[in-house]
Amino acid sequence: MFTIHDLRRLARGAAFGVAAVLLAVTAAEGQTADPLPSWNDTAPKAAIVAFVEKVTKEGSADFVPEPERIAVFDNDGTLWVEHPMYTQLAFALDRVKTMAPSHPEWKDMQPFKAVLDGDMKALAAAGEKGLLELIMTTHAGMTNEEFQKIASDWLATARDPRFKRPYTELVYQPMLELLSYLRENGFKTFIVSGGGIEFVRPWSEKIYGIPPEQVVGSSIKTQFVMRDGVPTLFRTPEVNFIDDKVGKPVGINEHIGRRPIAAFGNSDGDLEMLQWTTMAPGARFGLIVRHTDAEREYAYDKDTPFGRLDKALDAAAVNQWTVVDMKADWKQIFPEK
Amino acid sequence: MFTIHDLRRLARGAAFGVAAVLLAVTAAEGQTADPLPSWNDTAPKAAIVAFVEKVTKEGSADFVPEPERIAVFDNDGTLWVEHPMYTQLAFALDRVKTMAPSHPEWKDMQPFKAVLDGDMKALAAAGEKGLLELIMTTHAGMTNEEFQKIASDWLATARDPRFKRPYTELVYQPMLELLSYLRENGFKTFIVSGGGIEFVRPWSEKIYGIPPEQVVGSSIKTQFVMRDGVPTLFRTPEVNFIDDKVGKPVGINEHIGRRPIAAFGNSDGDLEMLQWTTMAPGARFGLIVRHTDAEREYAYDKDTPFGRLDKALDAAAVNQWTVVDMKADWKQIFPEK
Repeated sequence: MFTIHDLRRLARGAAFGVAAVLLAVTAAEGQTADPLPSWNDTAPKAAIVAFVEKVTKEGSADFVPEPERIAVFDNDGTLWVEHPMYTQLAFALDRVKTMAPSHPEWKDMQPFKAVLDGDMKALAAAGEKGLLELIMTTHAGMTNEEFQKIASDWLATARDPRFKRPYTELVYQPMLELLSYLRENGFKTFIVSGGGIEFVRPWSEKIYGIPPEQVVGSSIKTQFVMRDGVPTLFRTPEVNFIDDKVGKPVGINEHIGRRPIAAFGNSDGDLEMLQWTTMAPGARFGLIVRHTDAEREYAYDKDTPFGRLDKALDAAAVNQWTVVDMKADWKQIFPEK
Repeated sequence: MFTIHDLRRLARGAAFGVAAVLLAVTAAEGQTADPLPSWNDTAPKAAIVAFVEKVTKEGSADFVPEPERIAVFDNDGTLWVEHPMYTQLAFALDRVKTMAPSHPEWKDMQPFKAVLDGDMKALAAAGEKGLLELIMTTHAGMTNEEFQKIASDWLATARDPRFKRPYTELVYQPMLELLSYLRENGFKTFIVSGGGIEFVRPWSEKIYGIPPEQVVGSSIKTQFVMRDGVPTLFRTPEVNFIDDKVGKPVGINEHIGRRPIAAFGNSDGDLEMLQWTTMAPGARFGLIVRHTDAEREYAYDKDTPFGRLDKALDAAAVNQWTVVDMKADWKQIFPEK
């Protein structure tokens, strides 16, 4: 009979053989397999591949050990559509309409009246303060579990008015491929969103392959409360953290505790995240998705309230960040239905 | 010559053979290998093993998929020594002494005078407010990188007065084994410390195998600032988050976004974390380390300012949490020198 020692030796020998064969397969396939099939063979794709190859090549001057291969992604406008308005705002407006029957006073009260009347001009006039009031009314006053269920239920049924598809299908196919490609090369991928952390977490794992513990975002304060002997986390109408602009490096540090080596964004809200990631020693990569495709998606930069791109574009030139021209660089925008 | 297809088939066949052999080795070793050699064969060890076996057994009613196997560990008093005072407090007191030459005014100013005079009674009289002042003075006013270097340098040279060893060697060997055992069984292990997040992160990976992104802790506010064109995160003397008591479930939710299925603590500061983890459907595990070994470590519970254990011990009985009696249940306290 085999002893454990014999089995071990046998296993080790066989494992070595398999490793050699797998290496041969990988090498042979190297020239044909394209990890980024929805990207055209233009400069951004070449820049991404060159970066990944140099940081993963052991012995090279730019080699980065696996635990330090942290990549951060903005969400709105970088991984999924943010026009004609942020999806979370569409959610908040829908929630106001759903909740309105229990709030007759909203008929005469701004900013709720504007939402119920579909009066976008009056809503804009309510400004940031009005927006914050809408968010607090629709996002607080319940437990976290309750909120996540409301958000998930809405995402399961709501449809984007232009594309007639669920919002979670309006994610960018090239970016999904990029997320996978980075992970296959030992990167840990994080979302760093200006949007609400609990709005993204219920679906980030299924859609992006990013688990909840790798989502950083804005948040309102929660309180631990025993309700009828059951521990709950109750959402209170108070801002906890705004994960946007100068907040992004702060959120990254608090959640990740390491400096990323690659950052992907699309707007001025991502400027400081890109600076924090790339303006440091060692191999670094910054990328901006530029919305240039009015036909297949949207075209906007300086003149939009959702995803304004101005200062970050100037900084891209200075810092040699890669700028993706959606129209020219992406073969396909959304996943097949 | 072999085609890729042939190589693939060969690899698959060989891999299958290796898997079978490895399974045989594992099965044969199952009865002899002890994943928790520093634990006596008393109730706590049996409870840990029974829990891990049932949540990892596919097809069993208690099976938990790998991504949901989240385990959270308090640090002070659960993973390393917290007496005669929290290590971070010893660090702060040492820092005050190091910084004193540049602060002649401290000679007549509490709570600094108390520290410089070694007058623990006066220090206690300064209360929480005094303590907070010491922490802010020694932990803020620098960048995060600078702080981490100061903390790391201190930990590299400071020695515990009783055991004459670096503080990072005064970690509990049985808990190190438990961390590894859980990870080998597909758990993701997190630290959830009342102490400062940036005080733990520089060494958590090396000592505990827990990377910085899996450390949750108390924090002060940081600001993103461009200093001479270099992006920095500057530590300001303002509390950001207290990760203790009711704060622990809040911190867990913010950082992890999933409810843990196992929690390990030692004091009343861990009560809510244990409640949040265990008072929910499905298989759950709560454990309290009780300091009962004055000879090999310390013995304390209700009457200590550092790691007071009172309410959480009562709750352990009600909630059927496992209570470790250090003296009876642990063969060894610290790793070998």
